[in-house]
Amino acid sequence: MKGFPIVKSRRVRSSPYTSRIEKQGVTAYTVYNHMLLPAAFGSLEDSCDHLKKNVQVWDVAAERQVEIIGKDAATLVQLMTCRDLSKSKIGRCYYCPLIDENGNLVNDPVILKLAEDRWWISIADSDVIFFAKGLATGNKFDVKIFEPRVDILAIQGPKSFDLMEKIFGQKIKELKFFGFDYFDFKGVKHLIARSGWSKQGGFEVYVENTNSGLELYDQLFEVGKEFNIKPGCPNLIERIESGLLSYGNDFDNNDNPFECGFDKYVNLESSVVFLGKDKLIEIQKKGVKRKLMGVQIDLNQISLTKSLEIKDNKGSLIGELRSACFSPHFKKVIGIAMIKEPYCKVSTSGIIEIEGNSIVVKVCDLPFI
Amino acid sequence: MKGFPIVKSRRVRSSPYTSRIEKQGVTAYTVYNHMLLPAAFGSLEDSCDHLKKNVQVWDVAAERQVEIIGKDAATLVQLMTCRDLSKSKIGRCYYCPLIDENGNLVNDPVILKLAEDRWWISIADSDVIFFAKGLATGNKFDVKIFEPRVDILAIQGPKSFDLMEKIFGQKIKELKFFGFDYFDFKGVKHLIARSGWSKQGGFEVYVENTNSGLELYDQLFEVGKEFNIKPGCPNLIERIESGLLSYGNDFDNNDNPFECGFDKYVNLESSVVFLGKDKLIEIQKKGVKRKLMGVQIDLNQISLTKSLEIKDNKGSLIGELRSACFSPHFKKVIGIAMIKEPYCKVSTSGIIEIEGNSIVVKVCDLPFI
Repeated sequence: MKGFPIVKSRRVRSSPYTSRIEKQGVTAYTVYNHMLLPAAFGSLEDSCDHLKKNVQVWDVAAERQVEIIGKDAATLVQLMTCRDLSKSKIGRCYYCPLIDENGNLVNDPVILKLAEDRWWISIADSDVIFFAKGLATGNKFDVKIFEPRVDILAIQGPKSFDLMEKIFGQKIKELKFFGFDYFDFKGVKHLIARSGWSKQGGFEVYVENTNSGLELYDQLFEVGKEFNIKPGCPNLIERIESGLLSYGNDFDNNDNPFECGFDKYVNLESSVVFLGKDKLIEIQKKGVKRKLMGVQIDLNQISLTKSLEIKDNKGSLIGELRSACFSPHFKKVIGIAMIKEPYCKVSTSGIIEIEGNSIVVKVCDLPFI
Repeated sequence: MKGFPIVKSRRVRSSPYTSRIEKQGVTAYTVYNHMLLPAAFGSLEDSCDHLKKNVQVWDVAAERQVEIIGKDAATLVQLMTCRDLSKSKIGRCYYCPLIDENGNLVNDPVILKLAEDRWWISIADSDVIFFAKGLATGNKFDVKIFEPRVDILAIQGPKSFDLMEKIFGQKIKELKFFGFDYFDFKGVKHLIARSGWSKQGGFEVYVENTNSGLELYDQLFEVGKEFNIKPGCPNLIERIESGLLSYGNDFDNNDNPFECGFDKYVNLESSVVFLGKDKLIEIQKKGVKRKLMGVQIDLNQISLTKSLEIKDNKGSLIGELRSACFSPHFKKVIGIAMIKEPYCKVSTSGIIEIEGNSIVVKVCDLPFI
């Protein structure tokens, strides 16, 4: 992989697994929540293909946790998200858009309810801890907020179920999607959720005991040989095909949840109190002026390092391509774009400029698969 | 420079100057506030030497601004920092530790007072915008908070004064340290402060008009030829020698301002209201149990990718080395370490392990120069 080297430091933290993945052939990093996140192990195409058929272990320690504990914990967590958590259950994960006072997105974490008064917000790439701290002190909530020492290992792919059964026993196969429970590994309890940032199935181990996590890491690769296990990481191709959105790439604090297709997580009819509720009601009433859509482009490759303007055939701006990759499955480039009204519907087309060439972009629905 | 490549994306943003610095020979990046920040142009030693004698232009667009505007802007800004801003003046920059409810650090920005009701918080590497938003909504403050489109160019080094005079006229030399004013470049006004993340003198241009900024960038290199101008970036050696602290490296949200030597910016005797004031009074009364100190190590090189434990000769932990580099000036490795009482005084020594070797670390005062 070409590119400029990243300088490691205490500020751009390594994970407990960094030395292992470097021995195993990681070829590129990104930075996520002030940590190194592996971005490739050789070819993205090969990794994507392997992920769809086998099992991979991912060092996703960069998915940090914000722990909120105390009498007002549930009130604070609910205040941050437009998803109604009033019927939430201990032992379940909830995908929740976090919303600011303008009705715009702050993050899209998975929230784990550990107890009525104890929650983990498993964050995408923004410092939710300071949002929570600001809200808590401003509202004089009785809570403690901190980043616990948790480094997630994801086990992803169709063979992850058989692999995890061999290590944790048959009970792990009974976990429902987005359920979590504690499982024993050589005398150490690990919180394990049936979740992960792919649509290929799998688990995330929320490792609190680092030494046990390292031992587990090695054991996964040992036991995983018969399942053709490989190291991996969130795969750009797989996540775009599956329509898994990425905060910072596909949307950010300038976008609202309706523009991003999060409608089913925006529970305006509920009686719960959350930030930006009035704004979201207003936005819903007016209707959105743009929307995240899929796009297809007849190209054999693309290297998108920043967003790219999409214009109509008269040169007017109609949208912005935010993520893209070549998909071997579709044999073309696919991407995620914020498209303005009235262009944000299937079969509209637009034009992007790449190295001086005008290339046609076709709008389609998300997810691709 | 060896290392693993960083993957660029919309989430890990390029700056308007990225294509220029890549043509000019940037050799490594770090990521700072979700943006690429150049980390090296070849040898750090050569760049440090050049910076001390000449002038450099730095792409520090990653120093993002949080704009706070509105009736309660001053109240909110003051709430976030333990530095008394009641006598602050328009047209001045203020280095301000930001503090949470526990008395711990959130960031150490330079705050610019643009008007009584309009401020820019020029941030180090954490999402202060969400802290501000949380506090504002929790306290029902009448403010707007957003990230304006500002990409800073720093002009640093002893010859920066003559260079900037050639472009902006004699008046720019009258700017006092940490003062700012607006200066004309070909009909476009730019906010320019006498500031920058080195101790070699210089300016920061807060570029709001990107096209004019790009033209200025090129003009600086054209006019700068006679001053032996080079592209550069915050230099690890120069900043450690000068004792310029780095949020995330030398301190973070687990440290308080007294531990970091920010005493003169902790104005507990003032009547202003800020977060964590009671906690800081308590901490001051008890005295700190550890402190950031300089360290000197008899080595010809070091590559610190994470913090390193410092032990006494009986193997007990006495501190943590957080930043380090080889200093050609001192002809040894120097660093910044958090050292526990009673070891945090000059001439104490400790031991670090590097590749199986025990190496003596001598504690000293900061800054080194």
